[in-house]
Amino acid sequence: MKSEEQFLDLIDTYFPRDHEFLKLGRGDDCAVLAGGKEYCISSDIFLEDVHFRRSYFSAEDIGYKALAVNISDIAGMGAKPVAFSMDIIAPSDLDDEFWNGFFKSMSMLARQNDIALAGGDLSRGDKLAISITIFGVAGSSGEFITRGGCEPGDTLFTVGDLGLARAGFHTLEAIGVKGREAFPAAVLAHLRPKPKVLIGTLLNAAGVKSLMDVSDGLARDLPRLLGNSLGADITLPAESLNGNVLAFALGVGTDPVETAFLGGEDYALLGAASPEAMEKVGSVPGVKTIGTVTETPGLKVNGSPFTTEGFDHFDK
Amino acid sequence: MKSEEQFLDLIDTYFPRDHEFLKLGRGDDCAVLAGGKEYCISSDIFLEDVHFRRSYFSAEDIGYKALAVNISDIAGMGAKPVAFSMDIIAPSDLDDEFWNGFFKSMSMLARQNDIALAGGDLSRGDKLAISITIFGVAGSSGEFITRGGCEPGDTLFTVGDLGLARAGFHTLEAIGVKGREAFPAAVLAHLRPKPKVLIGTLLNAAGVKSLMDVSDGLARDLPRLLGNSLGADITLPAESLNGNVLAFALGVGTDPVETAFLGGEDYALLGAASPEAMEKVGSVPGVKTIGTVTETPGLKVNGSPFTTEGFDHFDK
Repeated sequence: MKSEEQFLDLIDTYFPRDHEFLKLGRGDDCAVLAGGKEYCISSDIFLEDVHFRRSYFSAEDIGYKALAVNISDIAGMGAKPVAFSMDIIAPSDLDDEFWNGFFKSMSMLARQNDIALAGGDLSRGDKLAISITIFGVAGSSGEFITRGGCEPGDTLFTVGDLGLARAGFHTLEAIGVKGREAFPAAVLAHLRPKPKVLIGTLLNAAGVKSLMDVSDGLARDLPRLLGNSLGADITLPAESLNGNVLAFALGVGTDPVETAFLGGEDYALLGAASPEAMEKVGSVPGVKTIGTVTETPGLKVNGSPFTTEGFDHFDK
Repeated sequence: MKSEEQFLDLIDTYFPRDHEFLKLGRGDDCAVLAGGKEYCISSDIFLEDVHFRRSYFSAEDIGYKALAVNISDIAGMGAKPVAFSMDIIAPSDLDDEFWNGFFKSMSMLARQNDIALAGGDLSRGDKLAISITIFGVAGSSGEFITRGGCEPGDTLFTVGDLGLARAGFHTLEAIGVKGREAFPAAVLAHLRPKPKVLIGTLLNAAGVKSLMDVSDGLARDLPRLLGNSLGADITLPAESLNGNVLAFALGVGTDPVETAFLGGEDYALLGAASPEAMEKVGSVPGVKTIGTVTETPGLKVNGSPFTTEGFDHFDK
């Protein structure tokens, strides 16, 4: 890729400029989002050697995941993504084949979710970095579901595998692409997390009280859902976990429940609902009840207090 | 700065969470922009050793300019910025003093323009990178002024110094901070460009036809304003340029008009208006008529054809 113009031409071959939610598409000083809506917005960085390695992420994996982690934040509001803006810092050694793979899988994910690329910026740099800001709109309820607002006695639930991406990450770090053979589901969970947009909108419509996406692991994200004054009593039986998590934990000699609870990059959904609302909420596909909101701060997992924290991309 | 939490706490001391245009502020999966408006959006990367050097940009200069260049894109639509989202890749050697300086000057610029920080993301990395996505709303006219739409005979105008930031950039690259003594206005234009939001909204209200911000230099940006089928006849007398541009060009032995026309990072405004609208447009402070839109593509400057291009941050 020699010039910015070639790069923009390539983007144009993968991403259409028109979209129902764009009054003005790419190519001017600004794009313009259609009026009349409340937009929720979120930004996530996806950075080489911090969030991914080129040794075991293909170009397609990188393009996919950079957008997927942003979509997951919209899902965490029970909302629907409609557009995104993308800044790319691009090392000069990446060739046309790389960028075609990158944009192909990203644009496929965008198309599946009916999301437009509204704009962005490009710069040369040593490490590949993708910084995306994504825009979403509320579903049929007209509401965005935030964190907080829980009450003692509310039911806590998750949708999606816990600890599976963590197992995949450590496997890939240890043995690289060979990890695909060892723990295929775990590796796939790390390389290609599935944002749960449809589930999020169904949970929204079913009347959940509180919702978020689990990106830093349940141990760190659950307190963020609860706020400072509440706690939770969690039941997470080892037999409820994905077989890859159990096998990984057995292999490295750790507790599978701890692996699941620490997690990290699960891109699962975590929510709370009143016991009355749980009848409807429980019928949303994939919902697993994991415990109850308690009156006093602190987490109990399978009867024992849990204090360790999930991982922090910034603590390094 | 040891942890992400400390970083977020510092941000909270500089940037309030509440704003008229935020229905929901920072701290959840997403922020929510107030509904009912059309939002224009733009993203710009500000990257160490590509867009700035820490050797001659202070922390305050970096924080200021990272936001200023984004505000300028909103000004280029004749619009008003209201909020922004910021992703930061932060080297670990930057201390509390750096970040206080950085956020202090950025938050001052945000406050002057009544812009809220709506969210963002943080990551560790080798080079400091700030990726901002900014949101704006239309002024009293209710319209965003795009590029294009010019007709032969329209008057072209600029607001802001051309080539001054280029002179500042080359001076700083050659002699570092000592450049402040040699060409203070030029150096300031590079370190602290002034986005022209108020001017942009006045031009919008005065009925300009076409508007953009000049960030890559007039030679590259003017064809973007005109589109493929039109040209321009430009009159740019040396005596209309800033004295620092003349002195710099004399010092390095180049043509001051070429320096101004190539420019780069001017963050001036460039627009077109019908001869009838020029009466009102011409009364907006700082407006300088620079020429006329012509029927055939190509640029003429002071009677001579001009083909050389301004600089491209991506061509490296």
